[in-house]
Amino acid sequence: MTHPNPAFSQAEFDRRLAKTRTAMDEAGLDVLFVEDPANMAWLTGYEGWSFYVHQGVLVFHDADPIWWGRRQDANGARWTVWMGHDRIHGYADNYVQSHERHAMQDLAAILMGAGFGEKRIGVEMENYYFSAKAYTTMVESLPDATLVDATGLVNWQRLVKSGEEIALMRKAARISEKVMDGVLDRVRPGVRKNELVAEIYRDLILGEGEVWGDYPSIVPLLPSGAEASAPHLTWDGSPFKTGEATFFELAGCYRRYHVPFCRTVYLGEPPEFFRRAEEALVEGLESGLDAARAGNPASDIANALTAPLLRAGIERGARCGYPIGLSYPPDWGERTVSLREEDETILEPGMTFHFMPGLWMENWGLEITESILIKENGPAECFCNRPRELHVKT
Amino acid sequence: MTHPNPAFSQAEFDRRLAKTRTAMDEAGLDVLFVEDPANMAWLTGYEGWSFYVHQGVLVFHDADPIWWGRRQDANGARWTVWMGHDRIHGYADNYVQSHERHAMQDLAAILMGAGFGEKRIGVEMENYYFSAKAYTTMVESLPDATLVDATGLVNWQRLVKSGEEIALMRKAARISEKVMDGVLDRVRPGVRKNELVAEIYRDLILGEGEVWGDYPSIVPLLPSGAEASAPHLTWDGSPFKTGEATFFELAGCYRRYHVPFCRTVYLGEPPEFFRRAEEALVEGLESGLDAARAGNPASDIANALTAPLLRAGIERGARCGYPIGLSYPPDWGERTVSLREEDETILEPGMTFHFMPGLWMENWGLEITESILIKENGPAECFCNRPRELHVKT
Repeated sequence: MTHPNPAFSQAEFDRRLAKTRTAMDEAGLDVLFVEDPANMAWLTGYEGWSFYVHQGVLVFHDADPIWWGRRQDANGARWTVWMGHDRIHGYADNYVQSHERHAMQDLAAILMGAGFGEKRIGVEMENYYFSAKAYTTMVESLPDATLVDATGLVNWQRLVKSGEEIALMRKAARISEKVMDGVLDRVRPGVRKNELVAEIYRDLILGEGEVWGDYPSIVPLLPSGAEASAPHLTWDGSPFKTGEATFFELAGCYRRYHVPFCRTVYLGEPPEFFRRAEEALVEGLESGLDAARAGNPASDIANALTAPLLRAGIERGARCGYPIGLSYPPDWGERTVSLREEDETILEPGMTFHFMPGLWMENWGLEITESILIKENGPAECFCNRPRELHVKT
Repeated sequence: MTHPNPAFSQAEFDRRLAKTRTAMDEAGLDVLFVEDPANMAWLTGYEGWSFYVHQGVLVFHDADPIWWGRRQDANGARWTVWMGHDRIHGYADNYVQSHERHAMQDLAAILMGAGFGEKRIGVEMENYYFSAKAYTTMVESLPDATLVDATGLVNWQRLVKSGEEIALMRKAARISEKVMDGVLDRVRPGVRKNELVAEIYRDLILGEGEVWGDYPSIVPLLPSGAEASAPHLTWDGSPFKTGEATFFELAGCYRRYHVPFCRTVYLGEPPEFFRRAEEALVEGLESGLDAARAGNPASDIANALTAPLLRAGIERGARCGYPIGLSYPPDWGERTVSLREEDETILEPGMTFHFMPGLWMENWGLEITESILIKENGPAECFCNRPRELHVKT
């Protein structure tokens, strides 16, 4: 029982593990526990919607990783991970959402048994799936160990994408383009939001030929008019209206690799201030793309964007992008670099970002974005190839 | 800027707040911080896919709750919560995924300023969105306060549903039925998994007339054959095959209220052992439904299920259900009661569960489930009305 069609070569997994071990060395870690599902998948190939219970991967310096999780999910691990089945540990079901036991007691026993009871153990302190209680249970159950904050240790190794990863993202981009084409074609006054989202989801999951669509880590977002000042409202059954702008924030996804893509549609004749905002935003995007070159700091992108916006009297105040690639709900960002003034990370070829300068103003919103790849030479490459403009339907 | 069509009456929100304050009293809490998005929504009406950054609701004994979150999401709060806009606090964007700052420093300053620096503050220690780092940052930033584990305090108040909530769930159930009808109609050998999921999503979001479909907190799950031994594998582009069983685990959702519903399809003639498993499972379900009466302990349902399964030689080992209603990813369960032998919670009218005795065996899987409502008298009511059987397509 092994994966009939793994997403990556064994050489790729070996390289990832070696990079992670080097980072563990630098952090002085004897062992690392990752609970982030994207980090689990990146290291082992593990797949499945099981992250709503405690699970994780233990990374050792001198032995294959251990997949650890709920017993009923161990079958899914046998199906998807590259390690031998003796490296899969399932815990009993009465640990799940129990008010008497905590799954970390089981994990602590494994660590203790493997001789790490007095060692330095890395844990992802800032992560959706490593709860406060998981941490305090480990502290209690491993009283002589030192728990070290290893937040982002694996995420930083994921920042520069391999050729195999970029190939998956190029496929996801074909889905992103197709879905956005469908949106621009179908949106019109009177169509209900949920009717359009139904078609968006259908296109997202149908994909393109052999490129079957995976679920994106965030649902499609499409607020209109004054609601578009709130970037994260989800849809309802209300109709699109003439005289309103709607931004469409979505991502094609293939084998958990995402390419987010946003465009805005105005139904009717856009007012003059909206056109001026579009012009400044597109100029800022183009300046940012030109600044997105290997060797430049990440802040260069943010600064290049800001100048034309400020000239148009628009102050954003929010970061304008984040790394993308492999992810699971609730976010499709990688949570390492942030494209903002204070981030001095040097850009390298193979890094991938969602350059996302959304404008969420007092009573309107505008999003035109690009998912980008940092190249060896020259400006960034956009994954999607569609006009960088406000779409107007009159 | 207020919600044009709130899901609940103000009387409902008042009742929820009063119940929560009583529970806070019993736990000796001076103030409560909830980060669980379902608890936030239940208490305040807040809506939006913004839970991938830190946010929450502060509940006080003698003042309206405070919505606290990222500044760009404060607009969404103004749009959706019932409190006055002076009860909405947005924090600066450079707290988001920063390696220098943590949003909990901002929250701690609010608590300190409001006079809770030396008080008992409840926090949800076991929750997807209250990270280990959020906890240690609060401990550091509020050195004289006492942080008390209030995991599930609000979730337990949600266990018995109001009439307004049950009305939403009945609407969600119409979607669940419609989606399952579509599945049974469309599944056949050669259809690719993602093609069927595309139609499932379309039906889920289209909903039924005025009942627009919201996104379910878990994606549709539909593993086939030996893969069905792994309950949480997601789809790919492979085709359905003759001679394989596939279970379909999905939920209709309306205004964040879920009604999960699972059925299994066998393509071809099912083997004898599969028929025997079906027979035992249906007998177990029917016994369980009969035991699901107000006044009985939750364990009665589990025990009633187990007897016929054991007679057929099937040992499950996992819990057989959980409470359902309002939820956000990554789970549609409420994480309070578990339908299992050791749970002695007394059933009350208005409680709602997914009675979910999935069979995940060595190389096959079978799911036939019901979402149920505990009644004043008599056995549980099933939200969906569809034959409780294995569907065979030859």
